[in-house]
Amino acid sequence: MTSTLTEMPEISPTISGSLAAALRRSAGIERRIGEDPHSFRILTGDRPTGDLHLGHYFGSLRNRVRLQDAGAATFILVADYQALTDRDVTERLGERVDGLVLDQLAIGIDPARSVIFAHSAVPELNQLLLPFLSLVTVPELGRNPTVKDEIAHSRQASVSGLMFTYPAHQAADILFCKGNLVPVGQDQLPHLEVTRLIARRFNERYPGPGGVAVFPEPDALLSNAPLLLGTDGGKMSKSRGNAIALRATADETARLIRGARTDPIRHISYDPEARPAVSSLVLLAALCLDRDPVTVAHEIGGGGAAALKRVVTEAVNERFAAIRARRTELAADPGYAREVLRDGCARARAIAVDTLEEVGDAMGTRY
Amino acid sequence: MTSTLTEMPEISPTISGSLAAALRRSAGIERRIGEDPHSFRILTGDRPTGDLHLGHYFGSLRNRVRLQDAGAATFILVADYQALTDRDVTERLGERVDGLVLDQLAIGIDPARSVIFAHSAVPELNQLLLPFLSLVTVPELGRNPTVKDEIAHSRQASVSGLMFTYPAHQAADILFCKGNLVPVGQDQLPHLEVTRLIARRFNERYPGPGGVAVFPEPDALLSNAPLLLGTDGGKMSKSRGNAIALRATADETARLIRGARTDPIRHISYDPEARPAVSSLVLLAALCLDRDPVTVAHEIGGGGAAALKRVVTEAVNERFAAIRARRTELAADPGYAREVLRDGCARARAIAVDTLEEVGDAMGTRY
Repeated sequence: MTSTLTEMPEISPTISGSLAAALRRSAGIERRIGEDPHSFRILTGDRPTGDLHLGHYFGSLRNRVRLQDAGAATFILVADYQALTDRDVTERLGERVDGLVLDQLAIGIDPARSVIFAHSAVPELNQLLLPFLSLVTVPELGRNPTVKDEIAHSRQASVSGLMFTYPAHQAADILFCKGNLVPVGQDQLPHLEVTRLIARRFNERYPGPGGVAVFPEPDALLSNAPLLLGTDGGKMSKSRGNAIALRATADETARLIRGARTDPIRHISYDPEARPAVSSLVLLAALCLDRDPVTVAHEIGGGGAAALKRVVTEAVNERFAAIRARRTELAADPGYAREVLRDGCARARAIAVDTLEEVGDAMGTRY
Repeated sequence: MTSTLTEMPEISPTISGSLAAALRRSAGIERRIGEDPHSFRILTGDRPTGDLHLGHYFGSLRNRVRLQDAGAATFILVADYQALTDRDVTERLGERVDGLVLDQLAIGIDPARSVIFAHSAVPELNQLLLPFLSLVTVPELGRNPTVKDEIAHSRQASVSGLMFTYPAHQAADILFCKGNLVPVGQDQLPHLEVTRLIARRFNERYPGPGGVAVFPEPDALLSNAPLLLGTDGGKMSKSRGNAIALRATADETARLIRGARTDPIRHISYDPEARPAVSSLVLLAALCLDRDPVTVAHEIGGGGAAALKRVVTEAVNERFAAIRARRTELAADPGYAREVLRDGCARARAIAVDTLEEVGDAMGTRY
């Protein structure tokens, strides 16, 4: 599972210059969310490529629930059309989409307040890709660092047209519902810049009736979530088998943590730079316990890796017991996830139809 | 006005090798049209960038009417979303779209039999762009010779994402209605190859229920229409002011032909290589009169340019008198073109909805 809008790999030097400014902006936005949450419309989402895991949870999912609960209108995209490059995915798509919906519901997304919807069910959203593509150049699409990164890491000999145009499709995801706030990791800032560029150019070129801009220029809400590593000490990723799924059982969790990489130093400490694997385990326990990782490490101290793993396993299983129980309960009704998704798609579509009508009025394409 | 599917500039050497084969195929298809016209679904269209002219008429429009009258299902696209790159166009889009519809009706397109529709009104067609983009690579999109040509001749410093993805959007135009035949000029053969590639890959990757292929692999129906030059001896193009519009009055026509370029040799002959400007005027008269250009030139003989222009003017004005009268009559009801377009859009959309449902079944994206 790749969270399309919320991953956090390395940051390129060209971006980090503006990072401080983006972090300051985000802090200001957090204050405004506290004061007037209803003025925010948030778009976030995931590709249905596998189970959501604890890295997703602490990196973005719990933040999503927090924003919903604060009162912001929250749209959660099941980005099925952005999962088409992987044949293995497309063969089990329905199952993965259901799993993704169940994961959202289990963590606390409330389908009565938030809209969970899929790309494939909203033609009027997808249609926006066409006018949006007319507003960006091929070099602008190509120099996007995250697309470059995807290209560099792709197993494909060459990049699909879908991957290449992804930033413009993401602009359609965000702007169809007039999203004005997008929770992102640092790596996603350049993508959001493409959305802002498209919104700005659209509004300039096609002023709406009375000169009212059709689209907002959405802001980034930068996550400062700490980065969890996989149980092998590498980047946590479902495809590497090093991720603890949100839906894993207590036994599966124990087994995965038992096999986790540590290091030969017996005394446990929290030092992410020097001891990344051990520190990530400490961090996971601390996040689950809502405690400071330095303190957690200190308490384990000379207990060594065995004690660390015991603490982490208990912390994870306790923290996620209710979420997992709720997921099992919801999954017992095989039609429920579909029902939630269909309802969300219908609500998203009604909004997309309205937006496309406004777009047509502004562009002069309603004949 | 650029006819998106039917222009005929120079042909690249890499294509000409297969040209003979394509011409043989087209001859075979013509026989099958004679025998079983109802087995053909034809997609053709134009960008609403200006008035259709006589080059369009003899190059493609009259063929469109012929195929309709033979009994083939004919879909005529007003490619408004492919006209977005030109700001001047987008500012007068409604007017140009109406003009394009009137041109079609005037030449004999029957809205009761043929479907005239616009890109912007068929979200389910546009949605097909997404899965189709996943089936082609960036190099495949980029090496398309017509796109390269557009890029080379574009006044823009860089190419828009819309222009770059145009071959995949065209595949959506053709395949949404399961078009199996596309009248094209030679330059459009590579574009149609992209459509065939996308249809083939889609069918392989997403076999429909019972293994029935969702999409046909459409054939090209190669036009062997002779090439008319503009009145300045260059390529006929509305933007160069060298084109006689279908809707031009008899006086405008006379004026344009009076100013047409000829050459200093008094004796009129038909020799396109040595005397392109004079021969194109002879050809225009011959096409209007349904006669052989060599004979037409021979009859004018020593009459010189003045006689040639008189013959051409009379031939054009006579040939197009009924079409122009009909256009004037139709244009007198300002709502009629819109009514035809709306009806066509509704019919196209009903088909697109069905096709997208089939696509969703095959892809497993109907949740």
